[in-house]
Amino acid sequence: MNYQEKIKLSTKGYCDLIKITPKVEKVISNSSIKEGLVLVFVTGSTAGIITIEFEPNLVKDFKEFIEKLIPANKDYHHNKTWGDGNGFSHIRASLIGPSLTLSLNQGSLELGQWQEVVLCDFDNRSREREIVIKVIGD
Amino acid sequence: MNYQEKIKLSTKGYCDLIKITPKVEKVISNSSIKEGLVLVFVTGSTAGIITIEFEPNLVKDFKEFIEKLIPANKDYHHNKTWGDGNGFSHIRASLIGPSLTLSLNQGSLELGQWQEVVLCDFDNRSREREIVIKVIGD
Amino acid sequence: MNYQEKIKLSTKGYCDLIKITPKVEKVISNSSIKEGLVLVFVTGSTAGIITIEFEPNLVKDFKEFIEKLIPANKDYHHNKTWGDGNGFSHIRASLIGPSLTLSLNQGSLELGQWQEVVLCDFDNRSREREIVIKVIGD
Repeated sequence: MNYQEKIKLSTKGYCDLIKITPKVEKVISNSSIKEGLVLVFVTGSTAGIITIEFEPNLVKDFKEFIEKLIPANKDYHHNKTWGDGNGFSHIRASLIGPSLTLSLNQGSLELGQWQEVVLCDFDNRSREREIVIKVIGD
Repeated sequence: MNYQEKIKLSTKGYCDLIKITPKVEKVISNSSIKEGLVLVFVTGSTAGIITIEFEPNLVKDFKEFIEKLIPANKDYHHNKTWGDGNGFSHIRASLIGPSLTLSLNQGSLELGQWQEVVLCDFDNRSREREIVIKVIGD
Repeated sequence: MNYQEKIKLSTKGYCDLIKITPKVEKVISNSSIKEGLVLVFVTGSTAGIITIEFEPNLVKDFKEFIEKLIPANKDYHHNKTWGDGNGFSHIRASLIGPSLTLSLNQGSLELGQWQEVVLCDFDNRSREREIVIKVIGD
């Protein structure tokens, strides 16, 4: 069996982290699939998917880490291409990646106790995001 | 067809790298599935899965790289939340990611000659880890 | 249903980025599968798979970012093992990862408008690369 649904979300950009585990679980419930694989994939070139313990201090740590590693206020060649100033967002997204595959076992996602599925919107403006959830199995 | 098993491992933490390819292959053999996808997923928020040539010098390089990028002895906001001092472990795990999907072809994993599947335990203590292996196919 | 094909590519190494979306789409078309999951996996320990907007300025940004993060001209312990001087290539590959899973929906890959699937060859020489494409679904 094979089921797809898209989660739609409004984001604020600038490394906006949004917990989506409950929305992913809702899609799995809609699918009626109990055993298999679940793909979480964000379409677009300036966002990524991670797992993280979703508590405010760690969210702050993650944002500071990404800001130091790939600074927003540096000059990027890409900023000359379209003039939208989001070169940093693209590099962050390519590093983190848009795709996360999870195991569905007896109707439940296999995740650690504090491990949440989280969208990272790295763009430099608010966006309407679509996240593809594909469930495959029995 | 759909098969899941969990690998259990004792780790030492502090960027402990453990080769798990043989254990993943044992689960595939138990599954009797010959063609399809294999998900390797570590549950928990302070570990990750990579592929790497598993030789001692490169393992040392990987540890030094991670230590320089996300130092253990820096202060992290997360350390104020639970007081367990492992903020660095969480950031490392979110960057590296818990999930790796592989191809199973004619009963064998598609991997390069030296490419091994490796668990990275980033926590600051020894742990009993569970790694979910899900095999889906025919 | 279950289908696998390998894409073969000649690369130049040194963070050579090659767009492979059209080749992945050709394999999907050969598979006759319309709904499911598509795995893109590069075998070998010195290459990775990313998604990125594939325009020359952003490609330049990505190369500069990787070069600064994991410099080619630094000394790596791995260089003592085989003497092939590509320790940096291995660390880059382990960080970026060899595996990308995508959703196939009504015969099309779910990707953002500018989001391309791209091979990164991090090795320090030209290579003949094989990329496994596995399609599973209906």
